[in-house]
Amino acid sequence: MGQGNIEAAFSVVPEGSVTTPKGFKAGGLHCGLKKTTRHDLGAIVCEVPATAAGVYTTNVFQAAPIQVTRESIGAGGVLRAVIVNSGNANACTGKQGDADAYEMRSGFAAAIGVAPEHVAVASTGVIGENLKMDRVRSGIAELPSKLADSYEAADDFCQAILTTDLVKKEVCVSVTVNGRTVHIAGASKGSGMIHPNMATMLGFVTTDAAIGSEALHSLLRQATDLTFNMITVDGDTSTNDMLVAMASGLAGNEELTAEHPDWAAFAAGLRYVCEVLAKAIARDGEGATKLVEVQVRGAVSDEAAKAIAKTVIGSSLVKSAVFGADANWGRIIAAVGRAGQPVNPETVDIRLGDIVTLQQSRPIGFDEDAALEYLKGDTVVIHVDLHMGSGAATAWGCDLTYDYVRINAAYRT
Amino acid sequence: MGQGNIEAAFSVVPEGSVTTPKGFKAGGLHCGLKKTTRHDLGAIVCEVPATAAGVYTTNVFQAAPIQVTRESIGAGGVLRAVIVNSGNANACTGKQGDADAYEMRSGFAAAIGVAPEHVAVASTGVIGENLKMDRVRSGIAELPSKLADSYEAADDFCQAILTTDLVKKEVCVSVTVNGRTVHIAGASKGSGMIHPNMATMLGFVTTDAAIGSEALHSLLRQATDLTFNMITVDGDTSTNDMLVAMASGLAGNEELTAEHPDWAAFAAGLRYVCEVLAKAIARDGEGATKLVEVQVRGAVSDEAAKAIAKTVIGSSLVKSAVFGADANWGRIIAAVGRAGQPVNPETVDIRLGDIVTLQQSRPIGFDEDAALEYLKGDTVVIHVDLHMGSGAATAWGCDLTYDYVRINAAYRT
Repeated sequence: MGQGNIEAAFSVVPEGSVTTPKGFKAGGLHCGLKKTTRHDLGAIVCEVPATAAGVYTTNVFQAAPIQVTRESIGAGGVLRAVIVNSGNANACTGKQGDADAYEMRSGFAAAIGVAPEHVAVASTGVIGENLKMDRVRSGIAELPSKLADSYEAADDFCQAILTTDLVKKEVCVSVTVNGRTVHIAGASKGSGMIHPNMATMLGFVTTDAAIGSEALHSLLRQATDLTFNMITVDGDTSTNDMLVAMASGLAGNEELTAEHPDWAAFAAGLRYVCEVLAKAIARDGEGATKLVEVQVRGAVSDEAAKAIAKTVIGSSLVKSAVFGADANWGRIIAAVGRAGQPVNPETVDIRLGDIVTLQQSRPIGFDEDAALEYLKGDTVVIHVDLHMGSGAATAWGCDLTYDYVRINAAYRT
Repeated sequence: MGQGNIEAAFSVVPEGSVTTPKGFKAGGLHCGLKKTTRHDLGAIVCEVPATAAGVYTTNVFQAAPIQVTRESIGAGGVLRAVIVNSGNANACTGKQGDADAYEMRSGFAAAIGVAPEHVAVASTGVIGENLKMDRVRSGIAELPSKLADSYEAADDFCQAILTTDLVKKEVCVSVTVNGRTVHIAGASKGSGMIHPNMATMLGFVTTDAAIGSEALHSLLRQATDLTFNMITVDGDTSTNDMLVAMASGLAGNEELTAEHPDWAAFAAGLRYVCEVLAKAIARDGEGATKLVEVQVRGAVSDEAAKAIAKTVIGSSLVKSAVFGADANWGRIIAAVGRAGQPVNPETVDIRLGDIVTLQQSRPIGFDEDAALEYLKGDTVVIHVDLHMGSGAATAWGCDLTYDYVRINAAYRT
């Protein structure tokens, strides 16, 4: 899971955002779905038909916009736009909810002059309430005039998708493909579980690479497994989680396939974009004061390492200990031991940053002051080495704090 | 999962404890493993060889006393005593830890004049530190003089097994077998995760029924699956979890087997004892202000219902909402939907006590004041009906509070 080789394959673009790749405009505005005056409706639009791919929540309860977006991308693997509202998830809203999601799609398609099946729809916010469609309609009418390829317009979009997130999340990288510069950018929102009732994760990736829909989907799926699927704030999965990618092809490269010499570089860039967005969601988890990274190695397989990393990052006891800057390796080893994966109880090493706390499953003396200092930092890396094989995985999460409880206990009362 | 028929099969014995069944004495004292003056060493002793059975933690890391107890019960299914210390879990303690657990066994066996393989050993407390054996030795020397069949002696035992538990946990029932009165009693400790680093669950059941070791093990296993295995405080599993049952046979009934006419009544009594002890652990979860019960019915199988009930009871979002007395059905349905079990997204009902909040997967108006009042109570029951089949299960847990975070963040620092 090392980053060394990957980072060499691409460069981060300072102040890059979803409008940096050629062909994309974005925008956002306040139409009245949020009680505050913050933006609550946004869109990304591509000036040409973009090849598209999506990955969706595995929750049995899937909100109406998930179905509509599946249908749009399923129709031909092509999108011209994605429209997103915050403030209302349009979930558990019955037939009216379905109708509203379809109307968002057809309404915005008409407003920008494209076919309805070329528009994806995403929603995040309160569940169980129908959308105030009069406000959505007036927002849709105004939105085309806000679209631009500027950094400011991209910022408006990034703001429009947030719920209780504290900060917007965006990243852009450039990769060289056939000697040409290709951009891959993304925006996301996460862990705002107060108002939406749960942690809806939305992610949007734009690129000007030429790549087919199926190839894009396969890379998006792989990147998601190693990034968005490896973060946890509290283990809950929303009815609205969605990640959509659009590729305009305007960079002019030869179409990317698995045989293309720059396939790996593009894949690395896409994965990096997803990783930055995923880590930003984890760091901005409700009430979080720090990012926690768990690196597992020496497992019998990558799958085993993944399961162990996710069990450790999801342990409330580990999360509380990190909040309290407590070098509590006992909670870490207990989580390792209950992950349901092969573990040799005699050969486990645990490090917090560079501080070794357990070697060959036995506690060893460590400098408590140094450990406290390390754990007080804004990023804590827990290393677990099982010494059994070459399986490795990394997971990300955050600490469990008073504010998490305050935010989630106080929501409606 | 109804209790009606079961309760008719037995009666609760007021002020009954582990010494109520014929043949058992108990006791406890302070030997110096806890920093306070609270009891930290205790034992239950049977005056005749008792048939015995045990169930143990599934954690890969199993503490030394687990191995020793397995060996004792495995030798012939017979115990004369169980000795328990709190304040130190004797886990991750290497060969010295093994030697110490064996010495606890042989030392106490010598002190009461029985064979070492007739003694079980249990420990709970800090992990990764070796036992202060000088203190254990002096405690073992004194303990036989403390043993008695009085309620006070049983109380000393119940106190000696606690760590950060706020209250002792004990129960006793009587069942009629062959026209004779049989007693089944139990004591447990749980969720004290501060000092022991994790939630060690210890349970001890005594009965004067005549029953073989294998039959007792089979009933204990069944009862555990429906009770101790259906509680969660925060999902963590300790290296030291253990449940041991001893049957003296002094009630004089014909040996209980699956063909015995009173087999079901005895099984119901045993299950009730385990359920009371398990619910007491859940209610006394760290920082908990209330007991939460999740009843799932209408699932495709009992196994599916179990998985769903445990996902709901384990959701940090649901637990926080209950703490905040927030009738947040959205979080409940989201947990139902991610449990990985068959769910029809159109047919789910959710009730909080008697207050219906979701019917056929659609929110329906309910009296918010009544819901608030109900959720402020000290027991909250969440009912989920999937309307798919006859699978049912009940799980228990507690709310997630500021105190949980405070307790678990502040432990070592």
